[in-house]
Amino acid sequence: MIIPKAVQNLIDSFERLPGVGPKTAQRLTFYLLHVPQGELDKFANSLQSLKKDTVLCSICYMIGESDPCGICTDSRRDHSTICVVEQPLDVLALEKSERYKGIYHVLHGKIDPLNNIGPDEIFIGQLIQRIKNKKPGIKEMIIATNPTMEGEATAMYIAKQVKAQDPEIRITRIGRGLPIGADLEYADEITLQRALEGRNEY
Amino acid sequence: MIIPKAVQNLIDSFERLPGVGPKTAQRLTFYLLHVPQGELDKFANSLQSLKKDTVLCSICYMIGESDPCGICTDSRRDHSTICVVEQPLDVLALEKSERYKGIYHVLHGKIDPLNNIGPDEIFIGQLIQRIKNKKPGIKEMIIATNPTMEGEATAMYIAKQVKAQDPEIRITRIGRGLPIGADLEYADEITLQRALEGRNEY
Repeated sequence: MIIPKAVQNLIDSFERLPGVGPKTAQRLTFYLLHVPQGELDKFANSLQSLKKDTVLCSICYMIGESDPCGICTDSRRDHSTICVVEQPLDVLALEKSERYKGIYHVLHGKIDPLNNIGPDEIFIGQLIQRIKNKKPGIKEMIIATNPTMEGEATAMYIAKQVKAQDPEIRITRIGRGLPIGADLEYADEITLQRALEGRNEY
Repeated sequence: MIIPKAVQNLIDSFERLPGVGPKTAQRLTFYLLHVPQGELDKFANSLQSLKKDTVLCSICYMIGESDPCGICTDSRRDHSTICVVEQPLDVLALEKSERYKGIYHVLHGKIDPLNNIGPDEIFIGQLIQRIKNKKPGIKEMIIATNPTMEGEATAMYIAKQVKAQDPEIRITRIGRGLPIGADLEYADEITLQRALEGRNEY
């Protein structure tokens, strides 16, 4: 009522973002009222061109500027190792770690029966097809879905499918255990179980 | 490097918002990749028209659709009481409480010498002018700046100025003490001091 429509519209747009509640949406909107119009236009343009100027790579399904993406066309990378992740952001996180030099496959989700997401709703079929197509090329597949219930189930499903397709491929699961800097005392039981199972030889 | 420019631009825009760090900016941007283009366009339009479709009320300096604003032109409100607040959001908060039926004056800041903000940088002069212009009309002024160091100093400065202008006006400061639902045990000393000073007769 006392909020102008232009302000309310922006509050509504912010509120639709994940993790942004009504108070934060208000705060962000009123902050932007003090920002020069040029900044607002720049923000608006980035929003409008976000999807127009990006494509899904038809090989790994990462979001990129070109198809195939920069990673899939990089000849310095190890094309015999594929790392399977749930989301494009997971690729960024792994790239930042600077330890992985192979290529990726982005599932864009996880098997999640409670939310009606089965194997066909995410890019698992495309992964199997990829293995079929370059059969002798792929030596290892690292399954790096999240260590959640759904992520583990997805990993298990993929491992089974890939093994059925090509038993020669080495299939590994990303290590689970205590994160660096953690305190054993505060770790939950399942993490400790996994940490014991995944113990390494000195 | 592996992030497309269109994506990076939006991450940068989000990062400029207060309280949004690099991780949140990434998360919001990748979320928006899954949103229909129509939603993105709507968001972009709200950003572009935010400042174009709003004006500052020339009486109370609240952000509104028209000048004077809806509150200043509302004849059902008590125009003899002015509540002085720091920010437009404070008006929304007070309106939500549904206890205040007077009019407002938005300072758009507080006196903050450490950040080079003196009385002339905020709308204090305009408040004094307002009192001068409608001298017999205003009976009470509630100073509702924040109970912070700068807010208290601003309140004190305004009280002095208004008293010098018109000693007849009743000047009050919004009550300070324990917020509802708080625990005395965990309250800080200054809050407790204020709560004791501001005790009420039964």
